[in-house]
Amino acid sequence: MSTQTGHRSGASISNPGTVAPSAAESVTAAAGHIPPLDEGLRPAAQQKIDAKTKPLGALGTLESLAVQLALIQQRLNPRLDRKAVFVFAGDHGVAAEGVSAFPAEVTLQMVANFLAGGAAINVLCRHHDIDLHVVDIGVNADFEDHPALIRKKIRRGTRNFAQGPAMSSGEAVAAVEAGMAVIAEQSTRQRIDIVGLGEMGIANTTSAAAIISAVTGIDPADATGRGTGIDDAVLAHKTDVIARALALHRPDPSDGLALLQAVGGFEIAGIAGAALAAAAAGTAVVLDGVISTAGGLVAACLEPKVCGYLISGHRSVEPAQQAALDHLGLTPVVDYKMRLGEGTGAAMTIDVADAACRIMREMASFDEAGVSERSNSQ
Amino acid sequence: MSTQTGHRSGASISNPGTVAPSAAESVTAAAGHIPPLDEGLRPAAQQKIDAKTKPLGALGTLESLAVQLALIQQRLNPRLDRKAVFVFAGDHGVAAEGVSAFPAEVTLQMVANFLAGGAAINVLCRHHDIDLHVVDIGVNADFEDHPALIRKKIRRGTRNFAQGPAMSSGEAVAAVEAGMAVIAEQSTRQRIDIVGLGEMGIANTTSAAAIISAVTGIDPADATGRGTGIDDAVLAHKTDVIARALALHRPDPSDGLALLQAVGGFEIAGIAGAALAAAAAGTAVVLDGVISTAGGLVAACLEPKVCGYLISGHRSVEPAQQAALDHLGLTPVVDYKMRLGEGTGAAMTIDVADAACRIMREMASFDEAGVSERSNSQ
Repeated sequence: MSTQTGHRSGASISNPGTVAPSAAESVTAAAGHIPPLDEGLRPAAQQKIDAKTKPLGALGTLESLAVQLALIQQRLNPRLDRKAVFVFAGDHGVAAEGVSAFPAEVTLQMVANFLAGGAAINVLCRHHDIDLHVVDIGVNADFEDHPALIRKKIRRGTRNFAQGPAMSSGEAVAAVEAGMAVIAEQSTRQRIDIVGLGEMGIANTTSAAAIISAVTGIDPADATGRGTGIDDAVLAHKTDVIARALALHRPDPSDGLALLQAVGGFEIAGIAGAALAAAAAGTAVVLDGVISTAGGLVAACLEPKVCGYLISGHRSVEPAQQAALDHLGLTPVVDYKMRLGEGTGAAMTIDVADAACRIMREMASFDEAGVSERSNSQ
Repeated sequence: MSTQTGHRSGASISNPGTVAPSAAESVTAAAGHIPPLDEGLRPAAQQKIDAKTKPLGALGTLESLAVQLALIQQRLNPRLDRKAVFVFAGDHGVAAEGVSAFPAEVTLQMVANFLAGGAAINVLCRHHDIDLHVVDIGVNADFEDHPALIRKKIRRGTRNFAQGPAMSSGEAVAAVEAGMAVIAEQSTRQRIDIVGLGEMGIANTTSAAAIISAVTGIDPADATGRGTGIDDAVLAHKTDVIARALALHRPDPSDGLALLQAVGGFEIAGIAGAALAAAAAGTAVVLDGVISTAGGLVAACLEPKVCGYLISGHRSVEPAQQAALDHLGLTPVVDYKMRLGEGTGAAMTIDVADAACRIMREMASFDEAGVSERSNSQ
């Protein structure tokens, strides 16, 4: 898929003030390469899981994951040999509005923490044998080389979308393409079977809530949450910032690139691009919390066929997530009351998906095990 | 702990018709050896998790598990080096009432499936590096020797509790002691750090619902569920069987052994004993679905101090479970809409607990990582 998704657009990066229609078309073209999830295998996959030694449907979520992964991989013995989490990190100009409980420099400090192996996502990826990659797509800092660091910086942070567009349309295209390129470049050595998409960026719940509010139509007051832990006064202010920004920009809710340009974040754009490229490569995509889900929503605006490849990793405490999930038709796999992001919920869910694949491959059928089926089916 | 929990009562097995008060006292005495969960370490454990590089409380359930495991192990670096699931299997005389969707011989067939490695619990234990032991505590069949098989048969199935007591009081004591012995015997080689308690026994949701209804006072109609998948007519009949049995036996709801004798199952008794012995050894106990939770409830009747060591592994679709969880003060860790038992939910949760311990041990603090704390705490 690298020829479809791996192209860069240096032109749009170097010329952020103007929209290059051909660049936007390149995103649309790449997204258009996603094959619709082939449902042809569903009856056989369902029959296979139904024949396992258990009451019908008794493995619940593990069964639906097993069937979805069989369809994504187009085989009855799906397997997740290579698992990867990508943490897209970017800064947000809107942090200047005082919408977060943490100072903006925490973005770069946490990227350093990821590279040093000390963050929650490092621990959970080590625990579940998941490769971890950190993508600097817009951090307001420079980093030394590190094997886990992928350099895709579009700009040192978005602009403050309370005052103007968060990014130029060229930057929006470049950020989505950067996300696509990350997947393509990391797939050359060995195909990735499942990707989790996480993020780091102080103030990025503000961007995510604005995007979700714009796309789903929910009121900013219903979309805005406490992020890393703001109090009532800051919550009211954050809600107001989002409402005023949407009134200022009035982005077309069906235009993923316009949404990113108006109120986006580079990491959200990168997640959207990565989701599109992964789906185009037939790779399952696990979204994380509200910000990652906003990235999935932007991806679906760009190409709805991505939805068949999406898995919602974790229920967020952020109120906007449910509206986005409803829009995408997804139900979160786990709910550990986490509100950390980074891809932590995705990492936990990747292991559940791995278990589901093993159930599909390794569990005996009634016939194989010589176990009697239901009384009323005999 | 083996001197406290590993004793057998061959006398009570050989003389099931009479209650040996000394035998019942032996269960009470062994249960009494559970140390109350020492809360002294809680402030330090909470402080340690709060200092990690994340917003306060942002790892949700993983944080509460990490703190609980620190208290159980009485150290700030809890670790789960040896993880084990015990599947207690037994048959139920009440199956003759036609309360299950599956024929009674499925119990022995599924035990054979466990020993052959083909059941869901085998797959999930392999996936999560958990030792699996199958305990025949009352299956209506004999099995050939197998390394994973532990022989603790009390009787080839309980009696039909629609007509009389499910077991003698001596059998109830012997079954609880067998569960205790299993933990003690398997701990001689290496201590077990966490145990999951699963079960297999056609018709055992009937027994579990009866026990939970008796202890918590909920109406049998609110306690009775569809088990492996019965229809409305069988559900009404199953509810009636439970209601009539409770009216017939009127077991003392505070007397764990009397409950087992009246409407119990050998596997539920074994789970209760195993929970007590594990807690006495300072081992965390993960309950599974409704039957395993009924075993935890019986254990708590015998010795309430066990509750500090209990973790609810999985939310069951069986309605009785919530009443039992409320009684025990537990909240399930995962909810995958499973209704299989075997310990499958416990196996999934053991891995979450393992991840929580690694978070406690490996994740960097704000100080260690040089990350700024909240703006309003500076």
